[in-house]
Amino acid sequence: MRQIAIIGLGYVGLGLALALSKNNRVIGYDISEARINGLKENYDRNNLFTSEELSQANIDYVSKSDDIKSADFYIVCVSTPAYYYELPNLEPLINATKQIAGVLKKGDIVVYEATVYPGTTEEVCLPILEEFSNLRVGEDFNIGYSPERISPGDSQHTLASVPKVISAQNEDCLNIIASVYKECCETLYPVSCIKTAEAVKILENTQRDINIAFMNEFSEIMHALGVNVHEIIEAAKTKWSFVPFKPGFVGGHCISIDSLYLAFKAKRVGVQHDLILAARKVNDGITKFVRHELIDIMIKKNIPVQNCKVGIFGLTYKENIPDIRNSMALKLVKELRLAGFDCLLNDPCADKTVLEEDYGFKFKSFEDIKDISIAIIVVGHDFYRKVGFEHFLDKMGSQKIVMDIPNLFIDTQKNYPNILYWSL
Amino acid sequence: MRQIAIIGLGYVGLGLALALSKNNRVIGYDISEARINGLKENYDRNNLFTSEELSQANIDYVSKSDDIKSADFYIVCVSTPAYYYELPNLEPLINATKQIAGVLKKGDIVVYEATVYPGTTEEVCLPILEEFSNLRVGEDFNIGYSPERISPGDSQHTLASVPKVISAQNEDCLNIIASVYKECCETLYPVSCIKTAEAVKILENTQRDINIAFMNEFSEIMHALGVNVHEIIEAAKTKWSFVPFKPGFVGGHCISIDSLYLAFKAKRVGVQHDLILAARKVNDGITKFVRHELIDIMIKKNIPVQNCKVGIFGLTYKENIPDIRNSMALKLVKELRLAGFDCLLNDPCADKTVLEEDYGFKFKSFEDIKDISIAIIVVGHDFYRKVGFEHFLDKMGSQKIVMDIPNLFIDTQKNYPNILYWSL
Repeated sequence: MRQIAIIGLGYVGLGLALALSKNNRVIGYDISEARINGLKENYDRNNLFTSEELSQANIDYVSKSDDIKSADFYIVCVSTPAYYYELPNLEPLINATKQIAGVLKKGDIVVYEATVYPGTTEEVCLPILEEFSNLRVGEDFNIGYSPERISPGDSQHTLASVPKVISAQNEDCLNIIASVYKECCETLYPVSCIKTAEAVKILENTQRDINIAFMNEFSEIMHALGVNVHEIIEAAKTKWSFVPFKPGFVGGHCISIDSLYLAFKAKRVGVQHDLILAARKVNDGITKFVRHELIDIMIKKNIPVQNCKVGIFGLTYKENIPDIRNSMALKLVKELRLAGFDCLLNDPCADKTVLEEDYGFKFKSFEDIKDISIAIIVVGHDFYRKVGFEHFLDKMGSQKIVMDIPNLFIDTQKNYPNILYWSL
Repeated sequence: MRQIAIIGLGYVGLGLALALSKNNRVIGYDISEARINGLKENYDRNNLFTSEELSQANIDYVSKSDDIKSADFYIVCVSTPAYYYELPNLEPLINATKQIAGVLKKGDIVVYEATVYPGTTEEVCLPILEEFSNLRVGEDFNIGYSPERISPGDSQHTLASVPKVISAQNEDCLNIIASVYKECCETLYPVSCIKTAEAVKILENTQRDINIAFMNEFSEIMHALGVNVHEIIEAAKTKWSFVPFKPGFVGGHCISIDSLYLAFKAKRVGVQHDLILAARKVNDGITKFVRHELIDIMIKKNIPVQNCKVGIFGLTYKENIPDIRNSMALKLVKELRLAGFDCLLNDPCADKTVLEEDYGFKFKSFEDIKDISIAIIVVGHDFYRKVGFEHFLDKMGSQKIVMDIPNLFIDTQKNYPNILYWSL
């Protein structure tokens, strides 16, 4: 039985803490006292774990730096965001590393799960661990890296079922890391070095970013040509080699950030990375495209933009979760407001505390949004699917305009020939 | 029974002619008299059809423009290349269209299979057909578009088995086109308009171009970081959503060209297309990367570049076929020669007539290539796989350097720790 400390209790860290607490003593640390207080009361603000699941786990939730010191195995699950000027923000990672270094002892193991550019663990974290602990890696302690592959809200691909890539600085440490992870992951996939494991995760996510970017660029071209991009995609799917990506908003703390990490490292080693950045630019510019299309529609329909009431349905970065980090919906709302639109906001899932306090957003219930000129469905929450297309139409007068970013009602709308339906 | 004329007897047109000749009278036209003479003698210079297959088919091979006039159903299978300055070269398509227009009669149908940017059939070809025939589309004749999806040398995905996307200007014409294609394709996939069918093919191929480009860019970054990109790809494959593209040379008359067609149309309608062009730039620059890596190796190994004997194994754009159109291998050879290398060329499949006559290339048999300093395996022909790694090593002195672009021997090389092995 190990003494495991998990640093950072987001959806990655909490899931891991729950899984590992079955056979180990687990300390769960988070920098946010509110998060720790919630968890102590068996409440997960991300709605990914029930209070029953939380109450059954034996986890020692702590929010003081020193409270992790009894551990001998540290797993770092903090977020690795980007600064607004699109460079990696390693502050949370560095702070967690300093925190661990302050309590590190001989024989301890530190494993990183946060997505980083290849080299971060050994070039950024390791020197901090050594300097602040006065211990030597390989002799006194050991490090490893195992990329998290959690897809929040996805019940099919879980911590247990998705193969877990693991790596370490030496074979002995790798064996210990394997012995810990095999308790909660069915398949382990060891790779030859830490840098390789770091690269695996960033390859997966950047590939996704680029593919959605291409579908967005393609969609913009097809809109200009007046052809339906979704009919094209459906037809392309009949070719064996086509990969059915779709156009869409790319937000969140993973896909939209990880490419920037890879580009940052590429620049550091002097290698071209135009493609990665071109993809980022397309995905970042997609709100501008939607906004311009909206304004084009309004000009055609003779609706003035100033104070035009627009219903915004969905603000999270992904469907059915409360997470609003780097959500493109927020960017769209900001841009629409600047353009003069009166945006009425609704989201059945979003973490409203943050949006109301930090962003000054005011939310309305779905029923309370009415007399709008245009409905923009931004996120494909199941709630909207269940509510049904008709209820969105009821919110508008005789002239009905729906912009459906996630193509939630692309089939249903065919039964309503008199509405103006736009999909990305 | 229809009278079908196939214009352009490359691998697309010839395959179609063979398949349709079972139930129809088929005229096969090609602009190249050499091609027609070969086919008359049941010889396919592309090695895709045997003389037995050709001798059993009842096709009327012709090379005079007027010889197609007895047909009532025309299928255009000419190539749609690009000018060296990267714009679509529609000359073959326009010439074929003029040829058909010269013999067009009431009731005829013209179907295009060549890959084009969306809009080409109706905006470029149709006006020519009307002007040169003095007939009106819809009233006198009809047009359609059905993208070819042939993968030369691929016995699994054939004309018969891959769903065939079809489109036409009106429903009646679509039904006739369907009745023709259902004779040789198991599944038909009609789409709503010609522009959509054109877009389907260009989406498929541009997606492939972009994905390989990303793997190339990623590979360049990983080489700079000193990590093995193939180990990373293998590990990434264990994630459900990863698409296992690989780095590689993108040449040929499809993938490397079609993106340019899409970019051209995007520019014409004023839509950003940076991502598509960034991908093209990466794939086009891959020979430069290989060349620089080679020179770096030589500097490290103290081998002078001037007159250095390099074995080049493979010159076609793809494995196991003779096609050398837009082959990146030719670009690599050109660049290496300019840099001072002495390139010895071998290819068991390439169409050597063209290379010897037009390019002034001289070929050697595999056995005759010896005393080289470096072996560059450029194309993954089965022949090389069968020959085996050892035989490449025999061609070098005690210092053995192999650059393996298609990663043909990536596993085998692990048994030879003393050689310098580089893979893309």
